[in-house]
Amino acid sequence: MRRTLVRDALASREYGKEMTVAGWVRTRRDSKAGMSFVELNDGSCMGNLQVLAPASLANYASEVTRLHPGASIKVTGQLVESPASGQAVELQATTLTVLGFCDPLEYPLGKSRISFERLREVAHLRARTNTFGAVARVRNALAFATHRFFQERDFYYFNAPIITASDCEGAGEMFQVTTLDLEKPPRDPDSGKIDFKQDFFARPANLTVSGQLEAETHACALGNVYTFGPTFRAENSNTTRHLAEFWMIEPEIAFADLNDDADLAEDYLRFLFQEVLARCPEDLKFFDQRVEKGLLANLEALAKAEFTRISYTEAIALLEKAADKFEFKPYWGADLQSEHERYLAEELFHGPVIVMNYPKEIKAFYMRLNDDQKTVAAMDVLLPTVGEIIGGSQREERLDVLEARIRDIGMTPEDYWWYCDLRRFGTVPHAGFGLGFERMVRFCTGMGNIRDVIPFPRTPQSAEF
Amino acid sequence: MRRTLVRDALASREYGKEMTVAGWVRTRRDSKAGMSFVELNDGSCMGNLQVLAPASLANYASEVTRLHPGASIKVTGQLVESPASGQAVELQATTLTVLGFCDPLEYPLGKSRISFERLREVAHLRARTNTFGAVARVRNALAFATHRFFQERDFYYFNAPIITASDCEGAGEMFQVTTLDLEKPPRDPDSGKIDFKQDFFARPANLTVSGQLEAETHACALGNVYTFGPTFRAENSNTTRHLAEFWMIEPEIAFADLNDDADLAEDYLRFLFQEVLARCPEDLKFFDQRVEKGLLANLEALAKAEFTRISYTEAIALLEKAADKFEFKPYWGADLQSEHERYLAEELFHGPVIVMNYPKEIKAFYMRLNDDQKTVAAMDVLLPTVGEIIGGSQREERLDVLEARIRDIGMTPEDYWWYCDLRRFGTVPHAGFGLGFERMVRFCTGMGNIRDVIPFPRTPQSAEF
Repeated sequence: MRRTLVRDALASREYGKEMTVAGWVRTRRDSKAGMSFVELNDGSCMGNLQVLAPASLANYASEVTRLHPGASIKVTGQLVESPASGQAVELQATTLTVLGFCDPLEYPLGKSRISFERLREVAHLRARTNTFGAVARVRNALAFATHRFFQERDFYYFNAPIITASDCEGAGEMFQVTTLDLEKPPRDPDSGKIDFKQDFFARPANLTVSGQLEAETHACALGNVYTFGPTFRAENSNTTRHLAEFWMIEPEIAFADLNDDADLAEDYLRFLFQEVLARCPEDLKFFDQRVEKGLLANLEALAKAEFTRISYTEAIALLEKAADKFEFKPYWGADLQSEHERYLAEELFHGPVIVMNYPKEIKAFYMRLNDDQKTVAAMDVLLPTVGEIIGGSQREERLDVLEARIRDIGMTPEDYWWYCDLRRFGTVPHAGFGLGFERMVRFCTGMGNIRDVIPFPRTPQSAEF
Repeated sequence: MRRTLVRDALASREYGKEMTVAGWVRTRRDSKAGMSFVELNDGSCMGNLQVLAPASLANYASEVTRLHPGASIKVTGQLVESPASGQAVELQATTLTVLGFCDPLEYPLGKSRISFERLREVAHLRARTNTFGAVARVRNALAFATHRFFQERDFYYFNAPIITASDCEGAGEMFQVTTLDLEKPPRDPDSGKIDFKQDFFARPANLTVSGQLEAETHACALGNVYTFGPTFRAENSNTTRHLAEFWMIEPEIAFADLNDDADLAEDYLRFLFQEVLARCPEDLKFFDQRVEKGLLANLEALAKAEFTRISYTEAIALLEKAADKFEFKPYWGADLQSEHERYLAEELFHGPVIVMNYPKEIKAFYMRLNDDQKTVAAMDVLLPTVGEIIGGSQREERLDVLEARIRDIGMTPEDYWWYCDLRRFGTVPHAGFGLGFERMVRFCTGMGNIRDVIPFPRTPQSAEF
């Protein structure tokens, strides 16, 4: 079927042109003059196309008058200038085919106001609503903008493995992957313990928490790369900010230091904001009006914002001066709390802030040790209203320093043999960062709960659909 | 660091221009005239940039003469016309900084010819070789071409869930995901069975085998969507064509039938071939010369090929005429074997073939039942040399027919309540297909083993890195 998207029909001014559209009925209104007005949505945009269905249609009485919200139809007709206000065009139907009726008594979306909580229970249908259609479009725009940004800068897309047997990092928060019969797993006759040699991978395996370490292998061979794939945390956090399954973007740049990393993060964020503003103006206007007042102005400011860069040490000094504002007292050596991050971005600098060079004790082992021996070349990018949106670092490229740091955390360099190899054979300075994709979609839509910006959220006790 | 990519340096003709490059040494040759020639590769292309390092460099004796393959360096110098044949330009170094030495006795890539099998054991380094660098670039080009293709046609990128609790499809081949203590899982006091209510998702969960069913929810709300994400099969197949973890592309089109689906598959495949030819000519030439003779001509033919469309019934009739050529006798009702598929594409039609309308018994329950009541609206796209590359179908959009088909396979419609809902509320004809991304990368590179076209392959007994 050749169909015209509602978006293109609405933008067209070719009055008299015949076209076919298809989609789902949002509302139907019957006029006393003996015709019906049907608002049609096909997901191509927020707006509906008004279809004028005259009583002269062969199936007018038998079908058109039985159309309820959610029904699917195909309409061929002529595009005409609309006499009604608020819309430039409408479609005068010459044929209207019902593809599927929709019983208003059974349809979960039949009611006018449905809570986001209730919509989560019918997540298979919620993309048919204004809000979730808009979320899907914004999410799509941000995803493609990500690929464009990195591809245009000669980064290679890199697929980090999802299943991993390197359980070195935060094993406690990882999901296990197995094909063993859990009721009766094979056991080692001597120890009585589960015999993982008989598992699919012949060893315990988990779902990845980050593709960074693997991405480094390719940055240290091909130059700049980026991941964009699912990552997992088996954290029992029932909050509006956490998902057990989420998508991450992790660029890794070769021959780069922490400043290059910060430059890239700035450019990337500005590009995302510019793109979403350019591609989804109608959806963002909706979110600005209905979900978060001020969203649009905030995004527009960020799309051209200068990013302030300060050291962690400077940040602590600034925060200590305002210590009485905080629940958690800031001090050198402690991680920044969300309230601290927001204070810096919102009240002190009125815009995005990049905090650099954190105490080594509160950051990961692979971050590059600075000459002061106390801090590492880490950075967090903070945005007004949400705090941290990006975390990154220059990676430790010196083999001896890396090995010492690995021992510091109670591991042995052999556990990371391949990661150390990158430093053993032609090591290069390199850096990278991670962005939680859903956090960005949430930020750009103003949606309060992160479960509402991914099609089918996975959270503790919930893996529906 | 502002560096020029080797690719751009090689393409430049700005003789006399100063530039900085960085990368890894491929070879070093010392001339009797007292200088060294260093072949530098940075992954931006297959080719190396020749660096001319004069003895006048301050670190010539102390460092340059100790450079071995795999060492990393940064070079600033002047681009000059090369007197040597086979290269247009070279870089006359004014400074050469060693970033990391590489011990030739320890470096796994030091030897000249290393088997692909051995390289799999050092997969963290193999992207530094010509072959695997080229694979990474082709893979990247195909991935971005995929996004461009669908985005330019107004498809939304859709992220299907990775962890899923709908274990309806082929549960036997699924990986289980759990946070239970496998040694001592909690058990229900009455039945003695594992108490999955205490598992992370409060029920058994698995890794997805396909995002199709979930993608249909968004096609039936937003129009056209596509997935591009990891999928999993816990199949104990140790072959050159199977991975336990692989990436799939699954478009789903609304208001579409099987012919629309075939049109899309054709357009998509041609676009991929055109794009990889346009973006990776040097890499494809390498594969054509070193890996699979005739690859380039094959891809060029496919980039403008007409696709033959025949019915399964016609295909069987044609195959029966050549029955003595086959190990497996073709007959109506049996699935096509690889030898049948290749015979159709290679010997009979000399190009891609789309076989349509298969017997319902050998296809999935969700494929649309044709009017003959014997076949379903399924299609397989066959390519010369590999056979099936794409499988797709029009989906059953009639609730009563779908429910009957679900019962036929011994399930109940309640198991698929949300999938049936799509047919209950404003159902629309829709169709889609799946392409295994690694199969396509393998096809475009000629690499024999699918483990060599994904950075870190997951296969039975192997989840290294």
